[in-house]
Amino acid sequence: MFDSGLGGLTVVRELTAAMPGEDLVYLGDTARVPYGIKSLQTVRRFALEDASFLAGFEPKMIVVACNTASAAAIDLLEQRCEMPVADVIRPGAAAALAATGGAIGVLATEATIASGAYQRAILAADPDRQVLARSCPLLVPIVEEGRAQDDPIVLHVLTDYLRDLQRARPGALILGCTHYPLLSEAIGKLMGPHVPLVSSAQAAAVEVRKRLAALDLVNPLPTGGTLRCFTTDNAERFARLGERFGGRRLESVEYVGTDELEQSLRTLTR
Amino acid sequence: MFDSGLGGLTVVRELTAAMPGEDLVYLGDTARVPYGIKSLQTVRRFALEDASFLAGFEPKMIVVACNTASAAAIDLLEQRCEMPVADVIRPGAAAALAATGGAIGVLATEATIASGAYQRAILAADPDRQVLARSCPLLVPIVEEGRAQDDPIVLHVLTDYLRDLQRARPGALILGCTHYPLLSEAIGKLMGPHVPLVSSAQAAAVEVRKRLAALDLVNPLPTGGTLRCFTTDNAERFARLGERFGGRRLESVEYVGTDELEQSLRTLTR
Repeated sequence: MFDSGLGGLTVVRELTAAMPGEDLVYLGDTARVPYGIKSLQTVRRFALEDASFLAGFEPKMIVVACNTASAAAIDLLEQRCEMPVADVIRPGAAAALAATGGAIGVLATEATIASGAYQRAILAADPDRQVLARSCPLLVPIVEEGRAQDDPIVLHVLTDYLRDLQRARPGALILGCTHYPLLSEAIGKLMGPHVPLVSSAQAAAVEVRKRLAALDLVNPLPTGGTLRCFTTDNAERFARLGERFGGRRLESVEYVGTDELEQSLRTLTR
Repeated sequence: MFDSGLGGLTVVRELTAAMPGEDLVYLGDTARVPYGIKSLQTVRRFALEDASFLAGFEPKMIVVACNTASAAAIDLLEQRCEMPVADVIRPGAAAALAATGGAIGVLATEATIASGAYQRAILAADPDRQVLARSCPLLVPIVEEGRAQDDPIVLHVLTDYLRDLQRARPGALILGCTHYPLLSEAIGKLMGPHVPLVSSAQAAAVEVRKRLAALDLVNPLPTGGTLRCFTTDNAERFARLGERFGGRRLESVEYVGTDELEQSLRTLTR
């Protein structure tokens, strides 16, 4: 699995809970993070490089743990990779559709919202569904700064972003960025108990398990799965900050240069 | 000149005011922005690639418009480039030393503060000077989101970052990131009229003029200098958002891939 940085470790956490026997290889592109403020064509190129690097490990599946990369590049990755590719957008949209018959709110990065990927995934299943999309550019840096959920600045920024959604009272709210589950308590308090929050990380883990089961590829061991991490920036920093996202110590973190990712792309088959 | 993104256009603005006849080539590495949250070794690699690309234009000087890149890589760039290299840190530190005999405050990115570059530049000139350094990770994304200086969130975040500096009352405060001049009114109000703000962008422009004059290389024309911009992400987006930073329309913006920057590095002499 890959992500623009550390956020995808929230998907690792869910995936490990759902399938504790699986061996995971995680790539966090922390040298080029964030993806969410960049153009879709640049994110497509980065995503293809990231997937090419992972393809070298011959995994049974590649999971795009990053919402922005899922939104920008899932079609391209499915076309270019030999193994199945899972994203976080479609499971998130499906989980929200299952949670409510009413309007669906979406919080995500600028690029994810601009791509229209959540909107399309929801409307493909139900063309009459109202979708309320809101981009939240400050939430990723706020989470990365390590502020607590009850920090006055966190509440102030969230109140600003959620104003229209509080009025509209959607039937469910998708946390459409891997960083946002770390703010779910604060978001939940502001939206109230009548608005269920849908974590695309959790929905994606359920979907990955289902797809692997359909292919008869689930490792049934109840424990013992390993986690090997790669980062394009400093490995020590990744290990230190990643603990918060992954909820556990990261034992194995290795550096890989972005030039190596570009090199893998050149050797990707097809 | 180069910068991690759009912020360096504030240096373009100052440079054009000081030397309106000069032709400028600007590289904004918007595909990998921001540099300020990344490790010093990654920033050094990016900075060297950026400078290598610019060296291809055979300029009479390379200006590192990015504080983080200046802090991380000026020694390396001076060693590796054939032309003179100017940074924004040393001029900013010198201007602050000239502005006050008292303590000096520094606002900058995480990486710039962690590098200790401003602290070293000030203490090299005056070992007894007190330096109060404060990293402000949210200010770059806040400026890039386009919030006004009187936006309540901007004031709330600034109040949080400036709390200790307001108490300490330094004799001058360095705005040690190219984005921060866009918040100078709000910062000035919070610090009060007794604390002069030193823009490293302005100080760098003065220093560049002085160094070019010493080399007898100033173009004396009172007008007519051109500006050619390159961006590693979307050119249209760069032109649209860049106007705010540069204070003028950007007529010529071209795309250059980060793979081309890496390629230039391989061909850099010495």
